[in-house]
Amino acid sequence: MSQYTDIDRLAVSTIRLLAVDQVSAANSGHPGAPLGLAPAAHVIWKQMRLNPKNPEWINRDRFVLSNGHACALLYSLLHLFGYDMSIEDLKHFRHLGSKTPGHPEFELPGVEVTTGPLGQGISNAVGMAIAQANFAATYNKPDYELSDSYTYVFLGDGCLQEGVSSEASSLAGHLRLKNLIAFYDDNQITIDGNINVSFDEDVSKRYEAYGWEVLHVENGNDDLDAISKALEQAKLSDRPTLIKLTTTIGFGSLNAGSHSVHGAPLKADDVKQLKVKFGFNPEESFVVPQEVYDLYNKSTIEPGIEANKQWDALLDAYVGQFPELGAEVKRRLAGEFPEGWESKLPTYTPEDSAVASRKLSEIVLDNVFDTLPELLGGSADLTPSNLTRSKGAVDFQPPITGLGDYSGRYIRYGVREHGMGAIMNGISAFGANYRPYGGTFLNFVSYASGAVRLSALSGHPVIWVATHDSIGLGEDGPTHQPIETLAHFRAIPNLQVWRPADGNEVTAAYKVALTNKHTPAIIALSRQNLPQLQGSSVEKAVKGGYILQDVDQPDLAIVSTGSEVGIAVEAAKVLAEKNIKARIVSLPDFHSFGQQSKEYQLSVFPDGVPILSVEVLATSGWSKYAHQSFGLDRFGASGKGPAVYEKFEFTPQGIATRAEKTVEFYKGKQVISPLNTAF
Amino acid sequence: MSQYTDIDRLAVSTIRLLAVDQVSAANSGHPGAPLGLAPAAHVIWKQMRLNPKNPEWINRDRFVLSNGHACALLYSLLHLFGYDMSIEDLKHFRHLGSKTPGHPEFELPGVEVTTGPLGQGISNAVGMAIAQANFAATYNKPDYELSDSYTYVFLGDGCLQEGVSSEASSLAGHLRLKNLIAFYDDNQITIDGNINVSFDEDVSKRYEAYGWEVLHVENGNDDLDAISKALEQAKLSDRPTLIKLTTTIGFGSLNAGSHSVHGAPLKADDVKQLKVKFGFNPEESFVVPQEVYDLYNKSTIEPGIEANKQWDALLDAYVGQFPELGAEVKRRLAGEFPEGWESKLPTYTPEDSAVASRKLSEIVLDNVFDTLPELLGGSADLTPSNLTRSKGAVDFQPPITGLGDYSGRYIRYGVREHGMGAIMNGISAFGANYRPYGGTFLNFVSYASGAVRLSALSGHPVIWVATHDSIGLGEDGPTHQPIETLAHFRAIPNLQVWRPADGNEVTAAYKVALTNKHTPAIIALSRQNLPQLQGSSVEKAVKGGYILQDVDQPDLAIVSTGSEVGIAVEAAKVLAEKNIKARIVSLPDFHSFGQQSKEYQLSVFPDGVPILSVEVLATSGWSKYAHQSFGLDRFGASGKGPAVYEKFEFTPQGIATRAEKTVEFYKGKQVISPLNTAF
Repeated sequence: MSQYTDIDRLAVSTIRLLAVDQVSAANSGHPGAPLGLAPAAHVIWKQMRLNPKNPEWINRDRFVLSNGHACALLYSLLHLFGYDMSIEDLKHFRHLGSKTPGHPEFELPGVEVTTGPLGQGISNAVGMAIAQANFAATYNKPDYELSDSYTYVFLGDGCLQEGVSSEASSLAGHLRLKNLIAFYDDNQITIDGNINVSFDEDVSKRYEAYGWEVLHVENGNDDLDAISKALEQAKLSDRPTLIKLTTTIGFGSLNAGSHSVHGAPLKADDVKQLKVKFGFNPEESFVVPQEVYDLYNKSTIEPGIEANKQWDALLDAYVGQFPELGAEVKRRLAGEFPEGWESKLPTYTPEDSAVASRKLSEIVLDNVFDTLPELLGGSADLTPSNLTRSKGAVDFQPPITGLGDYSGRYIRYGVREHGMGAIMNGISAFGANYRPYGGTFLNFVSYASGAVRLSALSGHPVIWVATHDSIGLGEDGPTHQPIETLAHFRAIPNLQVWRPADGNEVTAAYKVALTNKHTPAIIALSRQNLPQLQGSSVEKAVKGGYILQDVDQPDLAIVSTGSEVGIAVEAAKVLAEKNIKARIVSLPDFHSFGQQSKEYQLSVFPDGVPILSVEVLATSGWSKYAHQSFGLDRFGASGKGPAVYEKFEFTPQGIATRAEKTVEFYKGKQVISPLNTAF
Repeated sequence: MSQYTDIDRLAVSTIRLLAVDQVSAANSGHPGAPLGLAPAAHVIWKQMRLNPKNPEWINRDRFVLSNGHACALLYSLLHLFGYDMSIEDLKHFRHLGSKTPGHPEFELPGVEVTTGPLGQGISNAVGMAIAQANFAATYNKPDYELSDSYTYVFLGDGCLQEGVSSEASSLAGHLRLKNLIAFYDDNQITIDGNINVSFDEDVSKRYEAYGWEVLHVENGNDDLDAISKALEQAKLSDRPTLIKLTTTIGFGSLNAGSHSVHGAPLKADDVKQLKVKFGFNPEESFVVPQEVYDLYNKSTIEPGIEANKQWDALLDAYVGQFPELGAEVKRRLAGEFPEGWESKLPTYTPEDSAVASRKLSEIVLDNVFDTLPELLGGSADLTPSNLTRSKGAVDFQPPITGLGDYSGRYIRYGVREHGMGAIMNGISAFGANYRPYGGTFLNFVSYASGAVRLSALSGHPVIWVATHDSIGLGEDGPTHQPIETLAHFRAIPNLQVWRPADGNEVTAAYKVALTNKHTPAIIALSRQNLPQLQGSSVEKAVKGGYILQDVDQPDLAIVSTGSEVGIAVEAAKVLAEKNIKARIVSLPDFHSFGQQSKEYQLSVFPDGVPILSVEVLATSGWSKYAHQSFGLDRFGASGKGPAVYEKFEFTPQGIATRAEKTVEFYKGKQVISPLNTAF
């Protein structure tokens, strides 16, 4: 006998029609997928552990809509399941300033991650599942199961075609993340028409190859029992599960099964016949029968609120039983670092030896790794180059492999930069103050552009340990030497882009990156050794930019970053011999500097002083802070690092020559600070 | 009985040792993969159709080293097979300015594509296979088989982990590209150690799921016959083939099978024992026994040169038999467009109606598609949005699907932007003047950053039709609205980044992009309608920037792009009412403008005139041409396009206000053109 009755079917129809009404009201949006996916949504959400009054509850189940364009479905669910989402909000679907934007946005209660760019959501979900497994392995104790939640995902063909989902899914299979259950909306339709124009692979077989459990629900349009049965079976698996759900896009619509229902509102007539078909009044919109509210209230909301209460009590008992761990959990849930953690950060003096900044980064990570259990690090298969693995770290691995366990905090991401970026976003979105970091070469952070952008947009404070940050990497040549990379990332809003010049600046970069709760950071680090600079300090560098070395009445300021700062210091000596007085400014992070007071910024770059920037990367973007720029607006070259620097004249003499020309150029001219702008 | 003898084994050892000697001489590089892959390289290259004296021969077989770090192997092969690569060149491996850089570079004879960034090579190879299939289907006639070449690929675990290779491989399976044969170096090692730390999926099963033929050679280290047998079997398949080749990384070395031989030179002792093991003098380096030269000369080089001769004769006969097609082939091989093709390009006057620039792009493509058979277009599943499919185009599809055929010139890429980018590079690298273009939303070109960068670095003139180019796309919201995107791409050397303002500028963008043989282009196009502007013309717009509307003695210049140019024109009217005289400059492409004479550039942006830039994207990079910038240095918002423009004040009044402040700011100040620089 079915566990589902007419009231369940009414609920499914309600979800469907609420979604259709939103799209019609906006005259914009995607009605097709919600119509096909409502039954699965009903089955999943009805049994989910959630508390709409406390959407941040750490032991909630999570639901990720990887096909984010189907957001009218998600908003309908949020309304029906008691979240802060009114019928009025639904009526303002896709309106400017509404709580129902065109794709789900992370800051809305009940929205677990921002989705829309395809392939990201499923990859975020892998990150959430990793975080849950780590949290559980770290804190659960017999009789104190603090964490046992699931992550559910909806994804469509588009998500499956994107490489980022392939990367993340392959890793999820390796990691045997049994807390991850994904529903693949097998509706055979994409924007270009029938999926067979571009995609006839055997998805189930591919996911089996990744090591996933794969199930199939043949009638996703109607068969609630089959969906429920698959869900129960998935929970029994010791692996992540993909449930292939064969559905009809736009189910019930006159154009059901065609791509015309994918991304455009249904015609008025169509909406009417749909309502009649589902037993609703065709003249009414945004209708929720009281029985449906009652159903979900009883099935899900009340039990969820109760479960949250019991969990709170469990946590209190846990704190009593395991005071140290309990305090740590409470601290992490409050989003605070342990008191005095910064004392672990190293500082340097000019007497200390020259060290590659990737190595300096390793020292920071080594020093704080034990103090900050929320650090969950890794590398995209460049561990010995990125130096991202803290001494004594345990790998995050399924215990069965014998290579580590789930309490381990070092992830072997494989050569999967984009997947790593999206997974880090998911780890961060899980909560519990998780701070993911991941290593690769700076040039290959670009492979993950799609995920980096979403970190910034959503405010996930993930950290990229981006080593080999210039032509200084040498022989690997132009395919590996970043040129445009920092210009690209500096143009992304809400993103720190650090390029520290020495030990103190590396410490500053991590200090700011870790302290900030809503801004991701890319830390660009050198392969080659860098001297510890006279004039640098953590206190100054956390400002993002500061006067490293000064002179009375400078003839010019040379502003630089990373490996070129030390060369600029040498250039100042060459200039001094010619009686040209140069102020040296180090500007390790534009974003942090931009947050300082105008007064402070002007003290660094005042009117009257010509400014020359020096950075061995594209000059684009530098005129925000400089009048003249010495950079590399061409691709690099393969050769020994110092030889390549020499070739492009990034030497004390090469800088001094350009500085001289800069001084000459501005002689007798009025020099306005680039910080003084018209509006 | 084996077809291979001692001389073959000597040749394999020679390849191995030449690679090891290169890495040792450079004291930098990757000896491991060449040692494992030399036997397969020997078997493949020995039977390849190639002419080292004419590396551009269109009917050559192609070899792509997707694991580009193994380039010492490729350079050894190029030397042994008679290409312009001397022993002296090998001795300068990884030296600045040498012909043997740290990763293979496209411009070197015999190097088919630039590789190194993992996952790209195999995806490029898919593009080459597409181009070959198209070329053959278009021009082959009974008894005139102009094109029947294969593309061979080496790839490693790293390439297989990258999402871009998943995208391209899935599409290759769908397209049934039987001319593509890939050898997967199953050596179980990556930089992080044993592959099982991150990658235990069943690769063979995955490729079967994609629709590939999958074969396995169990002993890739020694078993030349098994390799050869697999190769022959692959040629019989009607699908692309993946040959899993189990090898030992660093075969023969004391550390064979460990990751220590992956990316660092072998120790001197190790090299010596290796030479002894292979029967070479341990005290000598860069040794090639004459028998090995003789072997390859006889097996491959002489037959290849002869085959090229016969092919030349075949083409001559073809021209006689099929004069029109023959002339077309000759024209394409010469890399020239048909005389007068530009006459098909549309022009507009201000009386023509306002049209979205994506639609204007469609008109251009429609107009030239039949004239230019080298155009091979497509979209990443956004055909109805990108408007990339010319009327009457046939889809490039395996005939068996009934959806098109191989002579079709429209590719359904699926939601695979990165794969599309890499495939386009491969299509271009195939030769025959192929001009691939691909559509997606501008924001999602970023997913393909890794491939875009390689287009620019290698000089593949691919075209991105990048629609929905700003917040003007409206309701889809900030996940789809580009902000940093143009700043990113403008910072890449050798890349045109067009953002045309009207019909004439769209024509200019295509004209320049198509005419240029070594520079890729991104053409950013609006979703919303744009007016045909007074003052625009194709002749002016091809310069990349020009004065659209002028006044006598301007108080300021407003420079803008795309959809904002029309608004700036309206702003000028608002300003005129306040007696502020504004010159309006349209700057559709920084790259083309930068190639004009300094004199011309200064005529647009002279000293003495303050310049305000207006573009509804990140301001970063604009100070190259402007003193003040009005842009959007934050993420966008979901809402109707016009409402979002209003919100951010990109209106005539919003621009006029900032223009007024700009004029005010510079009153009494000396204004130097940003084009006048110190060096």
